[in-house]
Amino acid sequence: MTQGRAGGYRILHEAALRDYLAGLPDLAAALGGQPAAWSITEVGDGNLNLVFIVKGARGGIAVKQALPYVRLVGESWPLPLSRAHYEYLALSRQAELAPGLVPALLHHNEVLALTVMELLQPHIIMRKGLIAATHYPRFVEDITTFMARTLFFTSDLALAAADKKEAIAAFAGNHALCKITEDLIFTDPYRVAEQNRWTAPYLDALAASLREDMELHVAISRLKLKFMASPEALLHGDLHTGSIMVTDSETRVIDPEFAFYGPMGFDVGAVIANLLMAYFASAGHERTPGERRSFEVWVLETVERVWSEFERKFLELWRTEAAGDAYPATLFVGEKGAVWLEAERQAYMQRLFADTVGFAAAKIIRRIFGLAHNIDFELIEDPQRRAISEARAVRLARAMMVETGTFRTIADVTGAARKFRDWQPELSG
Amino acid sequence: MTQGRAGGYRILHEAALRDYLAGLPDLAAALGGQPAAWSITEVGDGNLNLVFIVKGARGGIAVKQALPYVRLVGESWPLPLSRAHYEYLALSRQAELAPGLVPALLHHNEVLALTVMELLQPHIIMRKGLIAATHYPRFVEDITTFMARTLFFTSDLALAAADKKEAIAAFAGNHALCKITEDLIFTDPYRVAEQNRWTAPYLDALAASLREDMELHVAISRLKLKFMASPEALLHGDLHTGSIMVTDSETRVIDPEFAFYGPMGFDVGAVIANLLMAYFASAGHERTPGERRSFEVWVLETVERVWSEFERKFLELWRTEAAGDAYPATLFVGEKGAVWLEAERQAYMQRLFADTVGFAAAKIIRRIFGLAHNIDFELIEDPQRRAISEARAVRLARAMMVETGTFRTIADVTGAARKFRDWQPELSG
Repeated sequence: MTQGRAGGYRILHEAALRDYLAGLPDLAAALGGQPAAWSITEVGDGNLNLVFIVKGARGGIAVKQALPYVRLVGESWPLPLSRAHYEYLALSRQAELAPGLVPALLHHNEVLALTVMELLQPHIIMRKGLIAATHYPRFVEDITTFMARTLFFTSDLALAAADKKEAIAAFAGNHALCKITEDLIFTDPYRVAEQNRWTAPYLDALAASLREDMELHVAISRLKLKFMASPEALLHGDLHTGSIMVTDSETRVIDPEFAFYGPMGFDVGAVIANLLMAYFASAGHERTPGERRSFEVWVLETVERVWSEFERKFLELWRTEAAGDAYPATLFVGEKGAVWLEAERQAYMQRLFADTVGFAAAKIIRRIFGLAHNIDFELIEDPQRRAISEARAVRLARAMMVETGTFRTIADVTGAARKFRDWQPELSG
Repeated sequence: MTQGRAGGYRILHEAALRDYLAGLPDLAAALGGQPAAWSITEVGDGNLNLVFIVKGARGGIAVKQALPYVRLVGESWPLPLSRAHYEYLALSRQAELAPGLVPALLHHNEVLALTVMELLQPHIIMRKGLIAATHYPRFVEDITTFMARTLFFTSDLALAAADKKEAIAAFAGNHALCKITEDLIFTDPYRVAEQNRWTAPYLDALAASLREDMELHVAISRLKLKFMASPEALLHGDLHTGSIMVTDSETRVIDPEFAFYGPMGFDVGAVIANLLMAYFASAGHERTPGERRSFEVWVLETVERVWSEFERKFLELWRTEAAGDAYPATLFVGEKGAVWLEAERQAYMQRLFADTVGFAAAKIIRRIFGLAHNIDFELIEDPQRRAISEARAVRLARAMMVETGTFRTIADVTGAARKFRDWQPELSG
């Protein structure tokens, strides 16, 4: 497979892509009209790939092609094309498990590391909507269904152990993408690293304090080990609000190229972290004090409901669809068995919640001190206001990472967020 | 590979084996003399395979061939020949990591699922020596070196994450052997299962109480999930005293066909469990009261030293050979970093100790109520005396499994064992 790719791979820019699509009758028919008349626009704003929107007389499609390097950095940072294979594999599995919550797959070419999907319109990247203070009434329902179903049905609670082991092995080759996470989320923000950046000079002292904070280094290292060696379920692996496209009435999760078998809390924590960052960034986007208050109330409610609905749906699947080798039903028969198993389900969710809190914290800190930032904060033009929002988020994140056990419920998380909303940090510079 | 096997596999009984070995010049030369004069004896007393000792004029070899079914049960329980591949893979890795502590590999035939190894003589199966109350002065030194090195060097503490993921995948196909463990150790002893047996009628009530003990079922299910989904290191996977061959001055670990990436505590717990069973069985082998007292003292000292030496060696490797992606050195620089990392190492070992205690308990219970028993107990002829020894072991094991946290040090384990040594259980019947 790798050889085939090395042999036939070429980057398809506009003209080559037009010819390629014209040669695929189903896609050409879906686009409609003459190929020469199709509009082709490169829209990739992610860090890794080319993304084209192609529109014809009848309809549109989205085309994603992996580049053999990290787009954000350039050819000096090579990255295997095989990630397109894993993304396709994950997307196929997610489509089975959470129908309607990922884009429809239309075509995949392994050699070109290229996938064609339905064009999501009028969907926008959720992060952009959050910056504009938009409420998304469908979001909790959809994202919790996506997470509960994709995580539960790929776990030992739903799968026979043999199938689970083979599934882990099927994604083991995606380690270059895992390595990005291991470095950029779990290591670099806590040490001197060339690619780190932060809102200087205001956060200089905070950045330095994180590099010296050994209690935090132990906590992030435990999380890193858990990320590397706890294949609980098939993760999306990069489930931030830039990987979610939304309208008022629809939600689609995109871009699972970081997919692998890892700890469930990493996905759930990613969603919660990005909502918390939207919350802390909100103050920085205010033009008049309090104008985004109802949005901020909605975001924290959403954090609470993301956890509580995820937990409710996951537990319900466990009660009704447990066909896996873990917690065998034959060990929990009768009324007494049911009571003990239900108590254990609650204990399991409590452990998963602790993981979620820890991973959420890691996702926040990397966006403020690491390589890849997010526009929630970046679009706050005044760097001092940005730094204030960021410092508040970091204060919460540090507590979540080193005092994880004190966050017993999701209300403890949102309560702490509310408390730090108006906290005035001391800035450097 | 599978196809090749299906194509060419045949069971080599004496005559066919003689011809096969005669066709391998190096082995034939090592045996010496005429092939017709070689003595060939089938000695397999394990549950799964054929094992031949072949002796010629010059020397001897051991030949192990996997059968396509579980020997203990028969052709009605098929088992993939691929286990010979994983055994060979594990043995090769163990030979690199713990030289001199596994038999030398002389030949492997993937199609025949056949491996030729050095003949271990005058080594005997350690379990038999323990039943005869023999002390093994080299044992602690050797087994702790074996465990510390094979577990450390295949863990995230020593490997890059990419190599670790590929190593996990390389063993993922050995799931049929894992399934045996999942069923026979982690499930069947706790429910009605046709293959269960115990010393009836004396342990009937105890067997029934285990089937009703929901606190225990939760504990064993947590251990099962950890066994299935915690690929910490390359395990031997079946490290009991029947998989260890010894003399006064040598130790060899054999039979790693259950090898896979799992939780380290499973291997360490296996060794400790089997020593504890030797201890509790000892009273049943007494002909005069107290005649095995010095052996019993030695066994419990050995339990203590197995943990303490394993811990010491593992920690020393971590301090000096940590080249893996976990706990990156750059996050723990300077004196303060060193202090925090060392504290975390101790905390890590404490978590590993808790796993060890739990898995040891699981290994004890399965030998008393499950399919595969061990001769430590089985050779106690008087079933009532046997039941008394077994009930004492079970009493300790239940405490270790459901009150794991109360066993903070290995002395807590041996102290409890000593306490139950003369406890008089109530027997059924």
